[in-house]
Amino acid sequence: MTSENHTDFIFPIRVYYEDTDAGGVVFYANYLKFFERARTEWLRHLGLHQSVLVEQANILFVVTYAQLDYKRPARLDDALLIKTQIKKIGKASIDFEQICMRQDEILVRCDIQIACVNAQTFKISPIPNFVHSILLSDQDN
Amino acid sequence: MTSENHTDFIFPIRVYYEDTDAGGVVFYANYLKFFERARTEWLRHLGLHQSVLVEQANILFVVTYAQLDYKRPARLDDALLIKTQIKKIGKASIDFEQICMRQDEILVRCDIQIACVNAQTFKISPIPNFVHSILLSDQDN
Amino acid sequence: MTSENHTDFIFPIRVYYEDTDAGGVVFYANYLKFFERARTEWLRHLGLHQSVLVEQANILFVVTYAQLDYKRPARLDDALLIKTQIKKIGKASIDFEQICMRQDEILVRCDIQIACVNAQTFKISPIPNFVHSILLSDQDN
Amino acid sequence: MTSENHTDFIFPIRVYYEDTDAGGVVFYANYLKFFERARTEWLRHLGLHQSVLVEQANILFVVTYAQLDYKRPARLDDALLIKTQIKKIGKASIDFEQICMRQDEILVRCDIQIACVNAQTFKISPIPNFVHSILLSDQDN
Repeated sequence: MTSENHTDFIFPIRVYYEDTDAGGVVFYANYLKFFERARTEWLRHLGLHQSVLVEQANILFVVTYAQLDYKRPARLDDALLIKTQIKKIGKASIDFEQICMRQDEILVRCDIQIACVNAQTFKISPIPNFVHSILLSDQDN
Repeated sequence: MTSENHTDFIFPIRVYYEDTDAGGVVFYANYLKFFERARTEWLRHLGLHQSVLVEQANILFVVTYAQLDYKRPARLDDALLIKTQIKKIGKASIDFEQICMRQDEILVRCDIQIACVNAQTFKISPIPNFVHSILLSDQDN
Repeated sequence: MTSENHTDFIFPIRVYYEDTDAGGVVFYANYLKFFERARTEWLRHLGLHQSVLVEQANILFVVTYAQLDYKRPARLDDALLIKTQIKKIGKASIDFEQICMRQDEILVRCDIQIACVNAQTFKISPIPNFVHSILLSDQDN
Repeated sequence: MTSENHTDFIFPIRVYYEDTDAGGVVFYANYLKFFERARTEWLRHLGLHQSVLVEQANILFVVTYAQLDYKRPARLDDALLIKTQIKKIGKASIDFEQICMRQDEILVRCDIQIACVNAQTFKISPIPNFVHSILLSDQDN
C-alpha cells in the first residue's frame, strides 16, 4: 500500500507583485501557494482534478503537516522552478518533498504531508482505490 | 424598499507585511480585503453573521461592482480606518461608499455593490425579510 | 503622445485553491491579481521587466483607478483567459480594459488605470521616453 | 545571550472570506499570516515597530524555518486566539512556538524561527543590542 519510488515533477512559477512584500522579496507564506500549484498540476497530469474529486468522490486533499526551510529569498520577476518528489503514498496520505529553485540555487525546501479527508466532516478517509491505483502506477514508471 | 439615510461605521485596520508588496506599500488588491472586513463587522454589529446566513437562509452576499480610486499609498505598520457608509439598500443589493483613511488623509475611496445570491446557484435572490428589516432599522437610527 | 489603437493580449490563468473562498468561487479581490499578471506579461513580451524599471529608471507602475463588473463566478480548476486591451497611453499613465473569460463567457470586466510614479516618493512621473516608444510601437502593429 | 523563559502573548484573529478557500475552511497558508500578525503585535507591545527597525537599524526579521501541524480546520467567522511563546532568543534569531486555538481546541501548532538580516543583502546580522535588551527584559518578567 506504500511506494518509496521517486519521480520528479517540475513546475514553473513566475514571481509577480502579488507574491512579494515590503522587504522586497517573496512573502514566505506564498511559497506554500507555489508548492500547492505544483502538487495540483502533478495530480492533473495524472488525470486527477481536485474539483472532480470533491464532486464525484466527496474527498478533499488537505495539508496536515509542513516543514519549511527558507534559504534564500526570491524576488520580483524571478522565474522559479518547483521540484516535486513523492516520498511515500500511504493509505490515506501522501508525503512530498518539494524544492523551490532559481536556476541552480535552492531557495526553499519543504516536507509536506497531505491527507485525504471527507469533504464535509474533514475526517481522515482512505484514498479511493481508483485514485490510489493511478498514484501508484505513476510511481512505477 | 430603499433607504438613503447615512450612518458611518468605522473599523480599524493595521498593516502587516502580508498586506504589502515589493513597492514598499500596501498591494492595491488588498484594500478590497480591508473594505470587506469592515462590511463584515458592520453586518456583525447588526447581529448578522455571514456563516449563519449561508446555513440558515442559504444566501451569500457577493460583490457585483467595485470602483476604486487610489490616492495615496499605505505602508507597513500604518494604523488605518475604514469608514463605511450605506448609500442604498435595495431589494436584492446594497450600495456602499467606503473610504480608507490614515488620520485625516484619504488613501483609497470606493463605491461597492453587494448582491444577495443563492448560495448554490449564485443567482440573484431577494434579501430575506428578517435581514432587510434589520438593515433598514439600522439606517433609521 | 497618446494612442487609441487596440491590440489584444491573451494570458491564461488556472484557478487554484489559493484563489477561492468559502463561497466555493474565486475571491473577488483575486481577479485584480489575475489582471495584473496579464499586464505584467504584456509588458514583458515588449521587453519591459518591472524589476528592471525600478532599478534602472527608478519608476514603478501603480494602479490609480479600477472599476470592476463581476458577472459570473469562476471556480476551482477553471482555465481562464485574461484579455488585455490598451485603451490609451498617456504621458504618465496607461488605461486598460481587461476581461476575464471562461471559454465564451465573460466573468469579470474591468477598466484599470496605471500611472508611472517615482519609486521612492510615489509622485506621478512621466513614463520614460524609451518605455513610451516601446509602448507606442506596440500599438502601431 | 539566550533566554529560555516563557511568556505567553495572546492575540485575537477573526476569520473573514479572504482567509477561506473552496474547501470551506481557512486556507492552510493563511495561518502563517495569523502567526505573523501575532509576532508583530508582540514586538509592538515591546515598543518595537518593524517599519522603524528597517529605517533606523536597517534590519528585517525574516522567517528561516517553520514547522506546522494542522489538526483541525478553522471556518468563516471563527474567533481564534493565537498564543505566542518565545522559546529561545539567540544572537541573531528568535525561536517561537505558536498555537492557533478556537476556545479550548488546538487547531494549528507551529515552531517558527525568525532571523535578523540586513535589509539590503538579507545576510544574517546580529540582533542590535537595544533590541536584544528589550527582548530579554520581557523574558525576565
